[in-house]
Amino acid sequence: MIDRIIAPVEGGVTAPLGFRAAGVSCGIKASGALDLALIVADKPATAAGMFTTNKVQAAPVVVSKDHLKRSRGRAMGIVVNSGCANACTGETGLEVAREMAAEAGRLLVCATERVLVASTGVIGVQLDGEKVARGIADAKRVLRREGHQDAARAIMTTDPWPKSCAVEVPTDAGAFRVGGIAKGSGMIEPNLATMLAFLTTDAKVAAPVLRRALAEAVVESFNAITVDGECSTNDCVVVLAGGASGVEITDATYAAFVEGLRAVSRELAILIVRGGEGATKLVTLRVTGAASLDEARRAARTIANSPLVKTAIHGGDPNWGRLVAAAGRAGVAFDLARCTVKIGPLVLFDQGVPYDDRAPDAARVLCEREIEIEVNLGAGGPHAATMWTCDLSAEYVKINAEYRT
Amino acid sequence: MIDRIIAPVEGGVTAPLGFRAAGVSCGIKASGALDLALIVADKPATAAGMFTTNKVQAAPVVVSKDHLKRSRGRAMGIVVNSGCANACTGETGLEVAREMAAEAGRLLVCATERVLVASTGVIGVQLDGEKVARGIADAKRVLRREGHQDAARAIMTTDPWPKSCAVEVPTDAGAFRVGGIAKGSGMIEPNLATMLAFLTTDAKVAAPVLRRALAEAVVESFNAITVDGECSTNDCVVVLAGGASGVEITDATYAAFVEGLRAVSRELAILIVRGGEGATKLVTLRVTGAASLDEARRAARTIANSPLVKTAIHGGDPNWGRLVAAAGRAGVAFDLARCTVKIGPLVLFDQGVPYDDRAPDAARVLCEREIEIEVNLGAGGPHAATMWTCDLSAEYVKINAEYRT
Repeated sequence: MIDRIIAPVEGGVTAPLGFRAAGVSCGIKASGALDLALIVADKPATAAGMFTTNKVQAAPVVVSKDHLKRSRGRAMGIVVNSGCANACTGETGLEVAREMAAEAGRLLVCATERVLVASTGVIGVQLDGEKVARGIADAKRVLRREGHQDAARAIMTTDPWPKSCAVEVPTDAGAFRVGGIAKGSGMIEPNLATMLAFLTTDAKVAAPVLRRALAEAVVESFNAITVDGECSTNDCVVVLAGGASGVEITDATYAAFVEGLRAVSRELAILIVRGGEGATKLVTLRVTGAASLDEARRAARTIANSPLVKTAIHGGDPNWGRLVAAAGRAGVAFDLARCTVKIGPLVLFDQGVPYDDRAPDAARVLCEREIEIEVNLGAGGPHAATMWTCDLSAEYVKINAEYRT
Repeated sequence: MIDRIIAPVEGGVTAPLGFRAAGVSCGIKASGALDLALIVADKPATAAGMFTTNKVQAAPVVVSKDHLKRSRGRAMGIVVNSGCANACTGETGLEVAREMAAEAGRLLVCATERVLVASTGVIGVQLDGEKVARGIADAKRVLRREGHQDAARAIMTTDPWPKSCAVEVPTDAGAFRVGGIAKGSGMIEPNLATMLAFLTTDAKVAAPVLRRALAEAVVESFNAITVDGECSTNDCVVVLAGGASGVEITDATYAAFVEGLRAVSRELAILIVRGGEGATKLVTLRVTGAASLDEARRAARTIANSPLVKTAIHGGDPNWGRLVAAAGRAGVAFDLARCTVKIGPLVLFDQGVPYDDRAPDAARVLCEREIEIEVNLGAGGPHAATMWTCDLSAEYVKINAEYRT
């Protein structure tokens, strides 16, 4: 038996058969950059979504959750705008979000609740419904399979580049595809869906199965990344399953489906970290030797969010002391006398003994753009967790001190 | 009945009668700056201490906790070095910390366990015991009441200025004093004692009473500040009570004693935030309308540590959206529809309604060096908590990316 080969393919969110997309400019961004994306299924698709756990939920989050519930997990399309989060906008904001879905529903000839909506941008500013309506009409006119690149661009805010990815998954029942686009890049921290991500697949998946598969795929992808430990008011991950490949997801193909979904989710999640605000390095942090999976994840999150760890990595300083200090305050079982810290292949601290003669080599490892760090908590357990994070640079401060002003 | 008047007095950690101090250079800091402080009581004092909750405990923390236990809360002096944290230094580090106390004990003619020790600086480097011994001998020779300024300087690392404070507290039984010195300024976050602070008093206090009073004073001072959400391996707050004022702390004077201790602790704590790494602004954050005191504190901590809130304040951006988004992810009861956000005297968001016409005025408030922010969680409870924090600047990144290298 050989491993399933999941192959990357071109085409992003429209790589799966049966989807079209578009990205247009409707004037929400003063710069005139693309700011409205439309993703549409040729035929009614099943849908599932995961949304922010923040108690402040933006209007589009409220509306999309409601629509998924009322449609029992069916959707024809997704409308997304950037430049305005439509969060903390009260009743007016809710009406604009509902009208955004209704307008798309009219044009796509489907019920309002078959349209999902998402927004990203500044909090607390009303979204201009007229601009959005014009944008939806414009986008509808240019919907096409090649539109995935424009759609990926139209959902960007401070992202340095568009994020797009697709794979083909072979199974005994035939091949299906999973594709997606996502945007970051600040306010990124797991729990839950920590950014906007829109996934599509041409597998045929029942709505409850789709929900379960999405939840499984998110844990070790979108929920395992952090840029700044913030959890947004607008985060969501949505997946549409159209079925055009003819491959039905059954017990026999479920594992392959989760694998495909996870592959795309993880690639997009890592792209979000790479494009994190001010980020210059991608750090894959592995915590091992934990007493439980939950503790492994908690320690990984604490270390990955530590400003002292992130600034040390930015400065190329192999400061294992900051790594163990962060692990020590994570509130999990930790034994300094049995702890190990590795930067790249180099053991810098092991069972109480520092190896500072290796610091110059470790500093060279930290100059790379991709860095692997491992912290063994020494708690004696077999549990491990991986988290992707980035360095903390002066540029992050600059971006966020000047975002609105 | 009038309020007790707690008056600030000169003299810092030696303002209380019966204490002398010194700060010398013993060569731990390559710069030749002062790096060893000695604080000594003329007669045996009672002592209490609170230490970091980090599971990585530096050698001096382990030794001081042990000494407080073995001496049953009695001490003659405190030795502190800066430039080396003596953390993650294994058995060798423990021996150096013990010898540091023993050397001071020999010179002060008291048992080793009557000396407390503390260290601050880089983690993972062995502390040079010979330098420390020489420093202790030098410091012993220049011990005097005027030595408090040198002592305050000798415990600094990245602190921009020395931190010192003292008050006189009148009671019906007579007046007593409380004094102290402290150092920051990175790795600052409550839980517990989050930096080094050394307090003295000439009140006469039994050791168990001193412990209780210290714990009470710390909650709303050293445990209510944050610079970067980090909890160090070396944090400690220690208090010595000598009794030279003749004022005994009994049930009648206990409240006054806690008040005096809290006044000095709070002043030192706020000085630490003011001198936080890269900090340009002191923010007093008040969270109100919480369902419980614990939730008020939790929300205050989440908001005070939010990088997006801290960068917005740095940039002078009255971004109330980031404040409510941080409150929303704090894991406490929160109702956006009843929430209020105030920057200075200006209400920017109230019960779902933004007042963005006030943004220019609020931006001017944020240009001050001292800022008050209030977030009412709208959870309907009467509970409130105050936390002191600072802005996050590019300078913080610069300091910490270059600390060792």
